Amino acid sequence: MTDYRRLRVALLGAGSVGSQVAGLLRQHADELADRAGARLELVGIAVRDVDAPRDVELPRELLTTDAETLIVGADIVIELMGGIEPARTYVLQAINSGADVVTGNKALLATHGPEIFDAADQVGAEVYYEAAAAGAIPIIRPLRDSLAGDRVQRIMAIVNGTTNYILDRMDTEGAEFADVLADAQRLGYAEADPTADVEGFDAAQKAAILASLAFHTAVPLDAVHREGITAIDKSMMDSARHAGYVIKLLAVCERLTGPEGESISVRVYPTLIDRAHPLASVHGANNAVFVQAEAAGNLMFYGAGAGGVQTASAVLGDVVSAARRHIAGGVGVGESTLANLPVVPVGRVTTRYHITLEVDDQPGVLATVAGILSEGRVSIATVEQTVVGDGEAGSGIARLVIGTHKALEQDLSETVDRLAASGVVERVVSVLRVEGD
Amino acid sequence: MTDYRRLRVALLGAGSVGSQVAGLLRQHADELADRAGARLELVGIAVRDVDAPRDVELPRELLTTDAETLIVGADIVIELMGGIEPARTYVLQAINSGADVVTGNKALLATHGPEIFDAADQVGAEVYYEAAAAGAIPIIRPLRDSLAGDRVQRIMAIVNGTTNYILDRMDTEGAEFADVLADAQRLGYAEADPTADVEGFDAAQKAAILASLAFHTAVPLDAVHREGITAIDKSMMDSARHAGYVIKLLAVCERLTGPEGESISVRVYPTLIDRAHPLASVHGANNAVFVQAEAAGNLMFYGAGAGGVQTASAVLGDVVSAARRHIAGGVGVGESTLANLPVVPVGRVTTRYHITLEVDDQPGVLATVAGILSEGRVSIATVEQTVVGDGEAGSGIARLVIGTHKALEQDLSETVDRLAASGVVERVVSVLRVEGD
Repeated sequence: MTDYRRLRVALLGAGSVGSQVAGLLRQHADELADRAGARLELVGIAVRDVDAPRDVELPRELLTTDAETLIVGADIVIELMGGIEPARTYVLQAINSGADVVTGNKALLATHGPEIFDAADQVGAEVYYEAAAAGAIPIIRPLRDSLAGDRVQRIMAIVNGTTNYILDRMDTEGAEFADVLADAQRLGYAEADPTADVEGFDAAQKAAILASLAFHTAVPLDAVHREGITAIDKSMMDSARHAGYVIKLLAVCERLTGPEGESISVRVYPTLIDRAHPLASVHGANNAVFVQAEAAGNLMFYGAGAGGVQTASAVLGDVVSAARRHIAGGVGVGESTLANLPVVPVGRVTTRYHITLEVDDQPGVLATVAGILSEGRVSIATVEQTVVGDGEAGSGIARLVIGTHKALEQDLSETVDRLAASGVVERVVSVLRVEGD
Repeated sequence: MTDYRRLRVALLGAGSVGSQVAGLLRQHADELADRAGARLELVGIAVRDVDAPRDVELPRELLTTDAETLIVGADIVIELMGGIEPARTYVLQAINSGADVVTGNKALLATHGPEIFDAADQVGAEVYYEAAAAGAIPIIRPLRDSLAGDRVQRIMAIVNGTTNYILDRMDTEGAEFADVLADAQRLGYAEADPTADVEGFDAAQKAAILASLAFHTAVPLDAVHREGITAIDKSMMDSARHAGYVIKLLAVCERLTGPEGESISVRVYPTLIDRAHPLASVHGANNAVFVQAEAAGNLMFYGAGAGGVQTASAVLGDVVSAARRHIAGGVGVGESTLANLPVVPVGRVTTRYHITLEVDDQPGVLATVAGILSEGRVSIATVEQTVVGDGEAGSGIARLVIGTHKALEQDLSETVDRLAASGVVERVVSVLRVEGD
């Protein structure tokens, strides 16, 4: 066996990902040494409770509650604690003590990314974060390196497994949101408090990270427009299916070109996409990142978005990269913010819309609705009118499903307000964006 | 604008990819400089004929027929000439004069990879080859870096756009091979001499590159088992569809575990895959690489497998990486052959089979066939018998479609020979492998 230099690896956190990372580091030690050019010596694992049960059995002597002491003298610190504090403090301590950092902490990067990357820059350390963007899917290096000579125009990504699982089951089983969510919680696909997933917070953090990377721009989390999936119901699913679409929670990161130059939009919301689109066939808790680049054309990266051992794969890839850099020098995968494009609010985005209204079933109503849309600069592509209820004439209410051409979000939003106040519209049932063309 | 150091870039070849690379290098010079940390100065383009028409207009003063002089003094040499010689000589010259090399030349790497990587190792140069593996799809860095902490178990890849285009049209239109090939040639999807594509030579070169990378083993091209698609006809397509499959030309790179330890198999042949498999929905001339890794689970990378500007994206990503390394040092994406697993012949592979036979329509024939399979250690999973011709009893010939459980290729092959010689089998219509489980 080659006599490799040893690198000291400290692990912070031994939850579902951390315990798998610890297990794989020990199980594949020889292979990892060959690939990294250094032996990766796990010197300790910082945990809150050394007696807590773990997914993978870990040697008791490696466990410690003293993260700060563990970090001192480590060459590589793997942070898998999650949350902002104390993760932020430990990561900064690691950087300042000369270690490279590997983290899967999307919340931390989305909120304190610039602080952390700046700190790393100042001391020449690197921060690796493949596991923070789309679980096990290798997306950081493709965006950072493989596409470095290209220009990303748009990313549309399914980056939250829980919501994709819920929407997929609603679509395939015709089930209601609350029922599928309860089932997902029972099966462990959703947390007891599902807010971070179903309200799109998790997806928004990942969208900020992907957009930062794709557009070489620091995207703050509060610049990401975010809507969750709690308002999606069976009737919207049915209406989408009827029109040839499926509803997915998408993170959309888009380069916009206007008279004042280039800008970007980053948004997370439920959207309709054509059933023939590659993203439509991403089922269950899987994730996928669809990238449209100027030269490369359409690319898609597909895989598990979560899961302890799957995410551990991404973490270990980063650990090997960090080790290689310790041995051979060179640059890591740190942020590049040289383009620094402005991030515009969602009102400046253009997309297509699928609007469902309940209107009075009276002569002239369609003309009134069409007139309001036209005045609002929203051009109609398709209309379908059906009678609500038992289908008898004169029941009083008709359902109008309108597909629009591309319109400005701000125009659309104001137009929908005018429709709601017009007197002929009883209820705005839903307004969904259509992405993917 | 930042005052960057200049790097001298020499381009060999100005065909469909090379001319796009030259165009993008000039068009996006400022952005590329920001990303690379150096200005990429295109100092010349070696071509066979300076007057030949190009896809992209190139400044006449950059064109030269003297590649050797151009290489001298270049920091980065981009080789997009194709073919073995003089590409091999120029690449070795570039390495020995201290340049890093970016190449899209799969034939060169599949046949002279070890020589080239060894030469680079000896002088500390790097060879980048993202464009050689699957066109525009970023697959080298995911395999080399992102999955460096994982163990790839199997790759199943559609790496030849021409054959995927032909098979896809045969599947969707019910057309015959020769007709679709002729049409593909007319449309520019297939060459006038289609041998390299339809006989699987191009796919075999890419399979050797992918397997080398995935298994950290030098895989010589002649260790790749190769079969083309010229024998695939409409009736096989129909039979596949009837059984829920689609036929794809797959490059399969697989880790095998046996009593003597680990080995690998690399093979290219037309296979049946389930229509629900993600690879089944790769249409037209697109490529996709499906990776099964021990920890990460199933991943898929999808995109354009060919095309001048698409492939240029992969080349430029490599050029930026090479430039970063010139500025900051570090390691490139060169070969790692430390695992050096033996490559076994196709006979040692186990997979499922779909066997179509024409047999005498006589009592006892099925029992005879089943007996021969059983003696040959080939276990039957499904059988379907239909009468050939007008369906009248006594027409003399029945068609037997047998789906097997997993069997050893060598056993299967010997068993098929025995079936053919058995007296009850009139004709072995087809034997296709089933991959993907």
